Amino acid sequence: MTIYNFSAGPAVLPKAVLEKAQSELLDYKGSGMSVMELSHRSSWFEAIIQDAEQLLRELMAIPDHYQVLFLQGGASLQFTMVPMNLAQGKKALYVNTGSWSKKAISGAKALGVEVEVIASSEDKQFTYIPELPETIDQEAAYVHITTNNTIEGTAFAKIPDCGAVPIVADMSSNILANDYKVEDFGLIYAGAQKNIGPAGLTVVIVREDLLGQTEIAAPMLDYKLQADNHSLYNTPPTFAIYIAKLVFEWVKEQGGVAGITEQDRVKAGRLYQAIEESGLFQSPVEKDSRSLTNVPFITGDAELDKQFNAEALAAGFENLKGHRSVGGMRASLYNAFPIEGVDALIAFMKKFEQDNGGK
Amino acid sequence: MTIYNFSAGPAVLPKAVLEKAQSELLDYKGSGMSVMELSHRSSWFEAIIQDAEQLLRELMAIPDHYQVLFLQGGASLQFTMVPMNLAQGKKALYVNTGSWSKKAISGAKALGVEVEVIASSEDKQFTYIPELPETIDQEAAYVHITTNNTIEGTAFAKIPDCGAVPIVADMSSNILANDYKVEDFGLIYAGAQKNIGPAGLTVVIVREDLLGQTEIAAPMLDYKLQADNHSLYNTPPTFAIYIAKLVFEWVKEQGGVAGITEQDRVKAGRLYQAIEESGLFQSPVEKDSRSLTNVPFITGDAELDKQFNAEALAAGFENLKGHRSVGGMRASLYNAFPIEGVDALIAFMKKFEQDNGGK
Repeated sequence: MTIYNFSAGPAVLPKAVLEKAQSELLDYKGSGMSVMELSHRSSWFEAIIQDAEQLLRELMAIPDHYQVLFLQGGASLQFTMVPMNLAQGKKALYVNTGSWSKKAISGAKALGVEVEVIASSEDKQFTYIPELPETIDQEAAYVHITTNNTIEGTAFAKIPDCGAVPIVADMSSNILANDYKVEDFGLIYAGAQKNIGPAGLTVVIVREDLLGQTEIAAPMLDYKLQADNHSLYNTPPTFAIYIAKLVFEWVKEQGGVAGITEQDRVKAGRLYQAIEESGLFQSPVEKDSRSLTNVPFITGDAELDKQFNAEALAAGFENLKGHRSVGGMRASLYNAFPIEGVDALIAFMKKFEQDNGGK
Repeated sequence: MTIYNFSAGPAVLPKAVLEKAQSELLDYKGSGMSVMELSHRSSWFEAIIQDAEQLLRELMAIPDHYQVLFLQGGASLQFTMVPMNLAQGKKALYVNTGSWSKKAISGAKALGVEVEVIASSEDKQFTYIPELPETIDQEAAYVHITTNNTIEGTAFAKIPDCGAVPIVADMSSNILANDYKVEDFGLIYAGAQKNIGPAGLTVVIVREDLLGQTEIAAPMLDYKLQADNHSLYNTPPTFAIYIAKLVFEWVKEQGGVAGITEQDRVKAGRLYQAIEESGLFQSPVEKDSRSLTNVPFITGDAELDKQFNAEALAAGFENLKGHRSVGGMRASLYNAFPIEGVDALIAFMKKFEQDNGGK
């Protein structure tokens, strides 16, 4: 049975990347050592982390005045690091578009930072991306947005204009799968375990003028210290960085971010169309706000959703169940997810609809 | 050419572990998915993390009233988390036995915690483990020690008695390679990349009564929150935890910690004896304070050290160069380091001594 893994993260990786990692797992390029056994101060590993950074810079067209950091702790640690580094003594503005935005907001509040939620889609269960107010307080430290909402299946189609106030973005679930411009952000962060690599690595891209604004009481949480040490202040998650490097190489082979995003559009487009044409399944998300990478759908009947999930799982469709906070189904279609899996899911949905009194 | 990897960390892993990981890298137990692709909420991964914890509990005889946490950020993040969680409003006592102790001390000071260094071996370049004062302030939050000093090559032969004051230990470089008792500690932490697994995983073992003493302004840094969520508050470093599980299984096969420590004693014993018998090489460390896992040695001539390091590297002895802060040579002999590598090094040292005017 072919397994299709719709996990929201940790998620499917390119098969070519896994095969490459497998082939050199005991002996990296004739070194006689596994990548996991390489000293982080060795020239072997230095080449890996430098290549990873260079490839990401190329893929995302990251300007020179942005630093690229390879950190740990996931987006959840960024919910603390962002306000700790950027908002001390200033107000931080947040856009509330779902579960992860709420965690970002509570992370800032826990630090005692003054938080203002300037837009929210909570009134309609986060089924759309709200407009930002026309006027943004230009004294604010930043405007925080979640570019793609993994659980709710919404995404910013375009990045708002906030004047001189830097936009800070949690891009965990659509990094390398969008046409945003890095220059439109002050800081971007992303947990690796969706479109980049294994869990345990967090990528931060930060504009240099935002670094070193304030003294940080915890060295590991200090962007400037991490930047000054090129992510080698202490031992970084070396193997995860190596896998990320292989993924970046793979994305490049797919025609870069433009090429892979085009594939993502085709994949998501087919599934959204099937949902539109279905008499049974529907999307809970407003059309203009739909995510390319996380596609939730429902029948409107919780029992039928449960039945669908059980039958889908038995047929090899893994991790299709929606997040426990929203129910239903969710197909996460990250870059490495194969289009054959989308077609197989659509065929399965049609069959299920027929079997359950559909058209 | 056979490669022997003396890296101080990330370090050599058991070959059997790497082979196992390689064999199931694309398909974990017939799941059709790599471990890197498993959702951290899946039953597949739940079994991995539970097995890892259970194995570690068994290996270290961890009592039930201790929690085992799988975190991120390395020992360096623990330098902040320990005082943040345990020392707020109280004085913290530190024993200064080298570079890493100093970092732990400065981590506590950076948070504004009152720190007292109650013993130090800085007077003799950290070449010995100092005695603790007979009287320990019983109002102190904890006494922090570094059980094994990776750079200086010293280790606590036995754990001091501090009365009711909990001992907090950075055990990064000799966890699973000692005969300490977990009950003698309030908290143990260890970066995985020496004796446990790949970089990017930190193991914390903490006595339950030490949890939840104070409100923590950063959720990811809150031991209690992490314990309440069984290390699944957010996505943990799943692949690193899987490798750790394989390493724990391997240690068990080696006769557990007692069995592997016996092997470690033989390996280190042979090298120390060769150093003692040499007319060229010497150990900078006092006999009673010598580490089993990190064995520094010098010729007393910086140029000759350099020559030795260059020739050793050319002969396949990787990462023998001492830390840049102390120079000389250092053989890190963690659990997975093969005894054949020790014998090969000793033979190489004898040959070098003969070639360079030795006996």
